[in-house]
Amino acid sequence: MNICIVGLGLLGGSFALGLKEKRKDLFFIGVDNNPQHAAKALELGLADEILPLEEAVAKSQLIVLAIPVNAIIALLPKVLDLLPADATLIDFGSTKELISQTAENHPKRNQFVPVHPIAGTENSGPEAAFAELLHQKIMILCDQEKCLPGSVALVEALCRDLNMRLSYMDSISHDLHLAYVSHLSHISSFALGATVLEKERDEENIFNMAGSGFSSTVRLAKSSPDMWAPIFTQNSRNISAALDSYIKKLQEFKEFIDTQNESASYELMQKTNEIRRILNGIDKK
Amino acid sequence: MNICIVGLGLLGGSFALGLKEKRKDLFFIGVDNNPQHAAKALELGLADEILPLEEAVAKSQLIVLAIPVNAIIALLPKVLDLLPADATLIDFGSTKELISQTAENHPKRNQFVPVHPIAGTENSGPEAAFAELLHQKIMILCDQEKCLPGSVALVEALCRDLNMRLSYMDSISHDLHLAYVSHLSHISSFALGATVLEKERDEENIFNMAGSGFSSTVRLAKSSPDMWAPIFTQNSRNISAALDSYIKKLQEFKEFIDTQNESASYELMQKTNEIRRILNGIDKK
Repeated sequence: MNICIVGLGLLGGSFALGLKEKRKDLFFIGVDNNPQHAAKALELGLADEILPLEEAVAKSQLIVLAIPVNAIIALLPKVLDLLPADATLIDFGSTKELISQTAENHPKRNQFVPVHPIAGTENSGPEAAFAELLHQKIMILCDQEKCLPGSVALVEALCRDLNMRLSYMDSISHDLHLAYVSHLSHISSFALGATVLEKERDEENIFNMAGSGFSSTVRLAKSSPDMWAPIFTQNSRNISAALDSYIKKLQEFKEFIDTQNESASYELMQKTNEIRRILNGIDKK
Repeated sequence: MNICIVGLGLLGGSFALGLKEKRKDLFFIGVDNNPQHAAKALELGLADEILPLEEAVAKSQLIVLAIPVNAIIALLPKVLDLLPADATLIDFGSTKELISQTAENHPKRNQFVPVHPIAGTENSGPEAAFAELLHQKIMILCDQEKCLPGSVALVEALCRDLNMRLSYMDSISHDLHLAYVSHLSHISSFALGATVLEKERDEENIFNMAGSGFSSTVRLAKSSPDMWAPIFTQNSRNISAALDSYIKKLQEFKEFIDTQNESASYELMQKTNEIRRILNGIDKK
């Protein structure tokens, strides 16, 4: 089977590398509008061949859009038009509602399976890809009822090969939940990094006084703006509500600190310690 | 030399374990008002003997207060009163201004060296201690000019044995900087955890949809309220200012997202990516 990966970065590249370890019958055709990325992907074995989009789609049974969500919206109608009758199209976008809407009225809608692998690092580009990235991670599959059973089965089979666990939901719920458990984390981390960089103009101070706690809390502030700015735009309604709740919680916490209400901040923290039990599960994923 | 560790938890225990690996001439006397912790500390070798506070202080050349900052304030005058003439007292508190003030007018002020090891994990108690915790970490030593040169030299020598790097500043600067690079991270993490736990009442959703990004951003929300609530109270003025800046930054970010001003959020993120270079230094510490 030929698989076309559009976007030879962290996710697209790791998807190819992971499958290559398990299946010898797959041939990966890479598409990337950055010629350096395409060359590097060939060199690293993320793709077996590089082709222009039209040619690559025409020859493939599975096409994967592993590009920023604004590029997915821009490319989706064109790729659906080009899609062979026996082929399946998936996207790896971190938003799902607008992407699903974009495909909604296309005659080949049912060949499109919107998925979201819950995996990533703060790094990007072909060199960031590694075969184990998706291992044991969750793949969220959205709006299953709008997809051909054969297309869904193909995606499920590849996820099994990658040792991924599947989770099913509609694209609207997806975007609501992801606003809280992923998009908000990124914003809180970027805002923390920005605040500290502005206040601590002498970076020696940050270097000498910050420990691993700061480092882990701002890790996501290393993430790529090319990937994240369009996610925030596409999921702005849910993210705005999540940010409202977060800012309110911070104001509540600040009020406890300002009024030296130590028992109230103690209680807030103690309740939140519950996250340890849930995270233990996530870290073992 | 006898070293008395008051508080046989993560920091006090790791300090003892780290030194024991390097020096065979040290004898550790443990003090802990929790008998289970004291017994566990003896069993794990964090202390060679457990004694009541008065007896332990009387027999020691170095006394270490490795307890929450409110307990340091409560105990400091008493331990200074008990302190032998040739002994040195240090504390490991994450705040320094109020602790230094508490000792300010004591006749033995110059035998007290306020320090802060920039190290820790989200775990606590004797079982959380490990010999490598302080290795290559920063030890901040405050208000050096108020301390006996011999006491400072003793602390510096032990830090060298632990492969720690020393940093010197006054206690007021310490609290200001720590509000940004440590205390604020903890609050942002606790508030994020609290927001997500309130909104995602079905923990399966968190478990199934959160990835390692969420996990790293809320890691500090596992921290002990016993340790952190008093830190927030003692450093409330600086933390309040830091929280103001952080909330303003979040509101600015939210405004960009609400108005779909993608280039502005892009720019904010791109500038903040600068943190990567600084963190690379911290992660290598």
